[in-house]
Amino acid sequence: MAEGKINEIHGWAAKEPGIKVEPWSYTPRPLGPNDVEIKIEYSGICSGDLHTIKGEWGAPMLPAIVGHEIVGRVITKGEAVSTLAEGDIVGVGAQAQACLQKDCSPCSRDLDPHCPHKVFTYNDKYADGVQSQGGYSEAIRVDANYVFKLPEGLDPVAAAPLMCAGVAVFAPMLRQGVKKGDRVGVIGIGGLGHLALQYARALGAEVYAISHSPRKRDTCLELGASHFVDSSDKEQTAGLARKLNFLFVTTDADGSQYNEYLSWMDFEGKVVVLAAPASQLTFSPFEFLLNEVAVTGSLIGGVNVLRKALEFAAEHNIRPIVETFPIEQINEALQRMDDGKAHYRIVLTH
Amino acid sequence: MAEGKINEIHGWAAKEPGIKVEPWSYTPRPLGPNDVEIKIEYSGICSGDLHTIKGEWGAPMLPAIVGHEIVGRVITKGEAVSTLAEGDIVGVGAQAQACLQKDCSPCSRDLDPHCPHKVFTYNDKYADGVQSQGGYSEAIRVDANYVFKLPEGLDPVAAAPLMCAGVAVFAPMLRQGVKKGDRVGVIGIGGLGHLALQYARALGAEVYAISHSPRKRDTCLELGASHFVDSSDKEQTAGLARKLNFLFVTTDADGSQYNEYLSWMDFEGKVVVLAAPASQLTFSPFEFLLNEVAVTGSLIGGVNVLRKALEFAAEHNIRPIVETFPIEQINEALQRMDDGKAHYRIVLTH
Repeated sequence: MAEGKINEIHGWAAKEPGIKVEPWSYTPRPLGPNDVEIKIEYSGICSGDLHTIKGEWGAPMLPAIVGHEIVGRVITKGEAVSTLAEGDIVGVGAQAQACLQKDCSPCSRDLDPHCPHKVFTYNDKYADGVQSQGGYSEAIRVDANYVFKLPEGLDPVAAAPLMCAGVAVFAPMLRQGVKKGDRVGVIGIGGLGHLALQYARALGAEVYAISHSPRKRDTCLELGASHFVDSSDKEQTAGLARKLNFLFVTTDADGSQYNEYLSWMDFEGKVVVLAAPASQLTFSPFEFLLNEVAVTGSLIGGVNVLRKALEFAAEHNIRPIVETFPIEQINEALQRMDDGKAHYRIVLTH
Repeated sequence: MAEGKINEIHGWAAKEPGIKVEPWSYTPRPLGPNDVEIKIEYSGICSGDLHTIKGEWGAPMLPAIVGHEIVGRVITKGEAVSTLAEGDIVGVGAQAQACLQKDCSPCSRDLDPHCPHKVFTYNDKYADGVQSQGGYSEAIRVDANYVFKLPEGLDPVAAAPLMCAGVAVFAPMLRQGVKKGDRVGVIGIGGLGHLALQYARALGAEVYAISHSPRKRDTCLELGASHFVDSSDKEQTAGLARKLNFLFVTTDADGSQYNEYLSWMDFEGKVVVLAAPASQLTFSPFEFLLNEVAVTGSLIGGVNVLRKALEFAAEHNIRPIVETFPIEQINEALQRMDDGKAHYRIVLTH
């Protein structure tokens, strides 16, 4: 059995709920035959990281090293790993394991994030009871099925946010069938939104960027939007009536705003929820009946979709706009993210 | 220009909001070149008829002859009508006209119920300002595109409820892609629900009938359900957790029950709203995010779908269970329908 090279992994962990992390180390699980050990070079900060350590998604397992937009280099691998080699530059996203068997109902439908044997990259448990720990760290050991060699031409720093934010917006576009000529709205132009504009444009859609920050107009147009709509201007939003075939909602604004969103949808239009408001979402039944709109949502993407998201990004030059922080300044970076000041994604350099 | 044969049409109209109708007659629009005049023999009573005349869907245009589950015989036709002949037994549903042009956005997508030039069978206005009047009546003049020759083998009485209730459940099954092996729930076993069981079974689905009336169990199993779930029994509904690929909601129960419905859905499962509760529908955003369920709805179906609904019913021996009333007893029939006592659909015989 192969041995790992880093047998005490040093990272930055939350030890109590909040957004403060501090140096901490753990002994990793033994390197299994299908595992890969990665020396981490970059990690993106995802809002899910903050929700987790703040305890907003339930009590976290502590200490918790979060971070699931990981890019690094393979430093060793289990004996059964044939698809990756030492030195490969690879990414790891929000999921670290699933059974991927043909007789697994979710896995057989490209829904491996719902596999009963799934393990998320952090704040989750392996079958042996060991807690998974994420990317704010020097290294990680992950099942090779969830380690993705970066395609040619994809800058490693820019690749990090694609591992979660990128696939989170691309997966529902693929699943819902966004195609050339569709009118696609993206509301909320942040980490997810600014990637959604690019993916939708590259799929051939006519893209509407919708934001309450008019200062983002120019950036949105540069990223591929054909239209910018100031969501705080009623005259501008009135122009959206029955206009959109798809709307990707990346803001966690109050759930009562959804009836307005639905009024922007063409018949059979689809609203895709990508962020969770604290409140329930409320809808008029008549929007469903009379206008046949649909509301759905999306979590992350399975292995096949994540691979496509990376290849598609490389092919179409989709790249996040990132601010980088040395990992020693992680607490400052987390605070900036929590304050909503990041433009548009923060990547920690290790 | 052809002339109509019945130039004063006698029917039963609501003259004020409520469920009372009384004899009344009107002079029909001139018979246009593409129009068909039909002597009505049967009309189904749809809950939409009641909502309309009770004023629950806004103030009705009065006097109003409602009824849009019409079966009758062609007695004359305009000179441009080539697809129908005098004597043909035909049906008319909830829609009487649309442009059906290729450059019409809704019509070009089989969404003619949303055509900007659509005219519903009653309580609507033609372009010339004349009010449309429905099927509780001796005759009707309708655009030939919305007159459907009944397929061989379809009993005319049984065909009436297919013109609205039947297509209302079949259209979203086609659109959403219900197929062999899918687990399909139908909640609310009434006019729509008892047809939904049959259509879903004929499409090859494993059907779950969900109702708070255990006395309907045997009928549901006879109509094609493989399972009956008493919705008032928590032990039984617990068995539905993450089970269904589709759920067709034909009850107008409180909108706050939708989170329970969503908990029954498999990942990517689809809930189709077919009836409007008085309250807003409320949903937890996490159902959309974590389980990727979808909620949508459906109104009626366009001409192509309605034709398929009739052909499919003839082919698979789908037939509503009807109570018939002579049209002279229409007020008694309306009351019975309003009291929720009809098993499962009422058809007036003229």
